[in-house]
Amino acid sequence: MAPIISIVGVKNCGKTTLIEKLIPELRSRGYRVGSVKHDVHGFNIDHEGKDSWRHSQAGSITTVISSPNKVAVVEKVDNELTLDDITGRYFRGLDLILTEGYKRESTTKIEIFRKGVSKEIISPAEQLLFIAADTDSNFDEVPIVDLNDVKTMADIIVRNLKLLDKDGVSLTANGKIVPLNRIMRNMVISAVGGLISSLKGVNHPRDIEIRIHNAAKKSLSNSPEQQPD
Amino acid sequence: MAPIISIVGVKNCGKTTLIEKLIPELRSRGYRVGSVKHDVHGFNIDHEGKDSWRHSQAGSITTVISSPNKVAVVEKVDNELTLDDITGRYFRGLDLILTEGYKRESTTKIEIFRKGVSKEIISPAEQLLFIAADTDSNFDEVPIVDLNDVKTMADIIVRNLKLLDKDGVSLTANGKIVPLNRIMRNMVISAVGGLISSLKGVNHPRDIEIRIHNAAKKSLSNSPEQQPD
Repeated sequence: MAPIISIVGVKNCGKTTLIEKLIPELRSRGYRVGSVKHDVHGFNIDHEGKDSWRHSQAGSITTVISSPNKVAVVEKVDNELTLDDITGRYFRGLDLILTEGYKRESTTKIEIFRKGVSKEIISPAEQLLFIAADTDSNFDEVPIVDLNDVKTMADIIVRNLKLLDKDGVSLTANGKIVPLNRIMRNMVISAVGGLISSLKGVNHPRDIEIRIHNAAKKSLSNSPEQQPD
Repeated sequence: MAPIISIVGVKNCGKTTLIEKLIPELRSRGYRVGSVKHDVHGFNIDHEGKDSWRHSQAGSITTVISSPNKVAVVEKVDNELTLDDITGRYFRGLDLILTEGYKRESTTKIEIFRKGVSKEIISPAEQLLFIAADTDSNFDEVPIVDLNDVKTMADIIVRNLKLLDKDGVSLTANGKIVPLNRIMRNMVISAVGGLISSLKGVNHPRDIEIRIHNAAKKSLSNSPEQQPD
């Protein structure tokens, strides 16, 4: 999973504007960037009357529109997804994910502080990569970057990408993410990697995704005899 | 992976309209339905000026908008995704996936034949579950259902769901789907299921998803000593 940096700050502090500047700067340096917008109030997407909109209105839970250069997905959910759910489900092959919002998650953050809009820093200092501010106030030893100095921000982000990179192993069982400690993680990598390496058609597996759905209990009990097809 | 049925037919034969009728009928019988619209010409989604639209315009490769009851994803792709890619990536927890289009894939199909619009049946007979037609012409022994008789169509679909259900195991290595025969599939279910069952926090794993990214070669060679964090 790509490292995540959340852009946070109070309403109207300029989060979307900063993301709009950061993405092309990072892409110009060769990084593949994805983004998440946290919309607590709900949103409209898709255009009324379009075929995909009609599928969704008719009750399709997950509607995908696929074209040669773009894919869109609209998925109804019972509960709001966590950032872990989102990044695990929808992102692949990226170097960095920027989120707009998600101040309550414990991700690494960039907080925007703007005179006349912001009153105080809302993130714990230890989560902050830096504060992007239009003032040079002192903020408890967290580095400050000028709100318009996108190049310096990108420098800091790039310098920290390696440090931000997570283990790269995620496991979901029955729809819930299973937290893995180092030993469990290495066990999964060794066992799954070893198994997959032995399969025909696989050379040096580096990125692996396995999905097993509706597995019969019998098959999962490791019994040698298997059910007929 | 949920079974897939493709609704095909010539342009303007009423594919979206049929899907709009089938989805609520199937949902009223308790089935969780997803859908795919094949758009060969490209499409617009998202509204100009919205935050997520601004992320995407700025160069975000994958943009997610998440709210408490809906998630949307807009992803730029270099090549058109296959139906296998789409269903593997974006669908989970569904009982059936209907596609609008994809006449060239070898999925099970329902073909619409409408007088004055359709000229001939475009799908191989062996792929057809039935033909939805407004005429009672004879079509090479493929069953015909009246185009307005959505209840009979849903009856046939539901009766065939079990037969359409695939193995429920998919494996992707280095971004490519690895075809699994029955023996390989059972091996993956047994080995992975056995491993996961042994982990703390997992009871009776039925649906499992594992993602391993950027696995170090060393870890994948099954060596007992592991790299430090």
